[in-house]
Amino acid sequence: MSTLESYLEGAWRAGGGEGVPVADAVTGELVTRVSGEGLDLAAAVAYARRTGLAALGELTFLQRAAVLKSAALALQERRQELYELSARAGATRRDAAVDVDGGIGTALVYASLARKGLPDHTLIVEDDPIPLGRGGTFAGRHVLTTPRGLSLQINAFNFPVWGMLEKLAPALLAGLPTIVKPATPTAYIAAHAVRIIADALPPGAIQLVAGSVPGLFDLLGGQDHIGFTGSAATAARLRSDPAVTRRSARFNAEADSLNCSVLGPDAVPGEPEFDLFADALVTEMTVKAGQKCTAIRRAFVPANLADAVCEAVAARLARVVVGAPDADGVTMGPLVGLAQREDVRAAVARLARAASVVCGDPDKVEVVGADAGRGAFLSPLLLRADDVDRPEPHDVEAFGPVCTLLPYRDAAGLNELIARGEGSLAGSVVSYDADFVRNVVLGAAAHHGRLLVLDRDSAGESTGHGTPMPQLVHGGPGRAGGGEEEGGLRAVHALLRRTALQGGPAMLDTITSKE
Amino acid sequence: MSTLESYLEGAWRAGGGEGVPVADAVTGELVTRVSGEGLDLAAAVAYARRTGLAALGELTFLQRAAVLKSAALALQERRQELYELSARAGATRRDAAVDVDGGIGTALVYASLARKGLPDHTLIVEDDPIPLGRGGTFAGRHVLTTPRGLSLQINAFNFPVWGMLEKLAPALLAGLPTIVKPATPTAYIAAHAVRIIADALPPGAIQLVAGSVPGLFDLLGGQDHIGFTGSAATAARLRSDPAVTRRSARFNAEADSLNCSVLGPDAVPGEPEFDLFADALVTEMTVKAGQKCTAIRRAFVPANLADAVCEAVAARLARVVVGAPDADGVTMGPLVGLAQREDVRAAVARLARAASVVCGDPDKVEVVGADAGRGAFLSPLLLRADDVDRPEPHDVEAFGPVCTLLPYRDAAGLNELIARGEGSLAGSVVSYDADFVRNVVLGAAAHHGRLLVLDRDSAGESTGHGTPMPQLVHGGPGRAGGGEEEGGLRAVHALLRRTALQGGPAMLDTITSKE
Repeated sequence: MSTLESYLEGAWRAGGGEGVPVADAVTGELVTRVSGEGLDLAAAVAYARRTGLAALGELTFLQRAAVLKSAALALQERRQELYELSARAGATRRDAAVDVDGGIGTALVYASLARKGLPDHTLIVEDDPIPLGRGGTFAGRHVLTTPRGLSLQINAFNFPVWGMLEKLAPALLAGLPTIVKPATPTAYIAAHAVRIIADALPPGAIQLVAGSVPGLFDLLGGQDHIGFTGSAATAARLRSDPAVTRRSARFNAEADSLNCSVLGPDAVPGEPEFDLFADALVTEMTVKAGQKCTAIRRAFVPANLADAVCEAVAARLARVVVGAPDADGVTMGPLVGLAQREDVRAAVARLARAASVVCGDPDKVEVVGADAGRGAFLSPLLLRADDVDRPEPHDVEAFGPVCTLLPYRDAAGLNELIARGEGSLAGSVVSYDADFVRNVVLGAAAHHGRLLVLDRDSAGESTGHGTPMPQLVHGGPGRAGGGEEEGGLRAVHALLRRTALQGGPAMLDTITSKE
Repeated sequence: MSTLESYLEGAWRAGGGEGVPVADAVTGELVTRVSGEGLDLAAAVAYARRTGLAALGELTFLQRAAVLKSAALALQERRQELYELSARAGATRRDAAVDVDGGIGTALVYASLARKGLPDHTLIVEDDPIPLGRGGTFAGRHVLTTPRGLSLQINAFNFPVWGMLEKLAPALLAGLPTIVKPATPTAYIAAHAVRIIADALPPGAIQLVAGSVPGLFDLLGGQDHIGFTGSAATAARLRSDPAVTRRSARFNAEADSLNCSVLGPDAVPGEPEFDLFADALVTEMTVKAGQKCTAIRRAFVPANLADAVCEAVAARLARVVVGAPDADGVTMGPLVGLAQREDVRAAVARLARAASVVCGDPDKVEVVGADAGRGAFLSPLLLRADDVDRPEPHDVEAFGPVCTLLPYRDAAGLNELIARGEGSLAGSVVSYDADFVRNVVLGAAAHHGRLLVLDRDSAGESTGHGTPMPQLVHGGPGRAGGGEEEGGLRAVHALLRRTALQGGPAMLDTITSKE
């Protein structure tokens, strides 16, 4: 099995040495080896800053939007190839839709937002002249320009395509060349996507380095941007690097969090919201086998409804079919690999100090179309923690098909429990009681990057708890990393450098007008 | 001499022990002692989060604006007291105007911007509903709400009043309680300003802790904001704290930088811009005795004009009168203290490896109205570095009345030289040639938080190279800390937490409307 190639300085090159073996999530067979050994990262950084920056700098925002669209369409054309690779990482067709189609859709939305909202220019004039004197001879205004650096994106394994495109799209629009560092277990999927789009992009606009990247941060500074998605521990380590602390490279972290969903007291069995809640829980547990940074980990239910919710969720989970993504009837694939399954089992063991497993078995699962002894299969696991004051449910994340039910007594207590997650990417409230919803949302807003309200009126078109939308910010405070991605053109603006200009109004016009 | 009191939990309390002596910059006499020993910082943090947050949360943005205005007016009423204290730290009347009147003005501008631009509500709805489905039953929108934390401001010694107010104003408007940690050498001025405004503010909205703050960062997390102004080295140290790296406390740094001013080739002697440039250089060298993070450290002049600029600046510097701030005819006071003077002399010695001192003497100065042997007096020092490729002029900051002339050959070389500062707070271009100005500004924008164009048309109303304006962003990339303050209401928005809400349009209306 050959080593996965990296795309550097416009050419595909393999790292040296043995590399890290990557196994098929379903069969355990070797898919590829990943090694960054001997790759010239300094040359890649220089290529991005010189060739990439210059090539992108020759295009206006609108021209970059056209480039982005053509790259997205190239992916759409060949998405079947990505589905097939994704299946090797355990993704069902539904999972691949989230990653592949979700990524393509995100890129297309960005191309469209840019077309409507960005100028045919290389800089953005953010505001009208602000008078700074009574005579009108001196004013200020803000411009956004492209930094003289690059965008390094360090991605998580779970969304190799979407994770790359949601960072690439705004970077490309901002005129920043990108270096992608995919997560090793699914690097081959990201690399294949880069193969598909590379020719649609200007030279140096994208590079990809598979494997570890020793010394890469030493090359970064105040004009560069680092976009990280992954664990809070890795985020903390990277954010402590002198590239960030001393040289002020911009750093955005999007980290896993203990996202919650709240069932309202009004949503008793028989009400539509009761079923919507149970459905959402099972969806979030099983899509990507729960390997989603936005998945619901803490399900808060009124104490008097806890038994009923348990039953409703159990009934739905009983219909989940675990197995090979391409086998008939399978609704949930394996985890990405055996190491990941070990991590999840260890986390469940910690959660079990405070909660009991009420559905599923961490050590046993029936599997369709595959050998349970070889693939990284795991049963969906519903836990219940009646002592909601214990730390584990609010602190231990099992990054798999795992969710803990937490009964709450009243609204005030609920708000405190939500806050104990210490910052989340996404939360949801499932209720038709507007007063209840309002109180929960306003109490929880400061702890969340996104909050979804789900009820009978909006359910038909609702995009769901776990799905970041390109139009809305994605990120969250505290434990979720404190960052912000997407949010429509906010992401482009955030990658640009804001500069206040001061001078005579005519001079400011001359500076900011297109030549 | 008693120890300077801190203002914690609504009461003034002195730290224990000997404390750090603070001397009068002019006479060397002891002004006060500063000690944080034994102060209960955990109680202060809890008081801010509980009492301060609740009190501010009861006010709408407009009500907070009124509070801010009344605090600013209280300071205006008693500004004479602040001038007198400022003189002890070496500030002339002109210097105190920048700090005291500048601070009051900033607070008043913020109150006014808030009155015009913020709602009579406790949250900001940032956008119209964004449709997320064709049927119109599901939409998204962004709200900005107050984090459940506090704003810790860590200030530099040079602007004890302005530095505090430019951070306090947006924090107050955002509903965030503030803890001020002033720099020790001028903490007594900041503390006096807090004495003046404390009663105008809601309980817990402001606290001040003089002295060191061991363990304070251990108490901070993802809902808190840290605003730092000071040296790049301290910024790096603070930004490495787990409060920031692990718990994602927001951290904004505004650090000293090697700001430049550029003279255009058109601005030959006899043109108004030539004189404007020389005047600006001398102003920036002498205001606050050059102890300004925005002061011009690198003066780029066309090589063929270097001699003429030297002469013109020398002629102006010859008219500078150094001495006691309250003595007749004095135009420049001492540095803040003897230690600061030692730092500046050491930096000048490093600069002297690459530059020669063409004006002034680092070891000798004539002084009016004071004893040169006791006060922290220093002559303004103009250096000239003909070898512009040497690292020192682009890297060594002498935080005093020091500026280095750097001759440049052509526009392309100039842009590279500017970039070698690796990120600055402020830059300026003095020229009447619009093409030249445009090229320099667009080349330098990504390296600057603010760029001023100075010419005959705008000079009459120009606020000058070194003056941050509350309406415009203040901060800069890279070496300047990578942060952003002020910028009008941007500063308030940045302190709030942005959350994307999703749901039915009617439900979103209910959540975001004022009760």
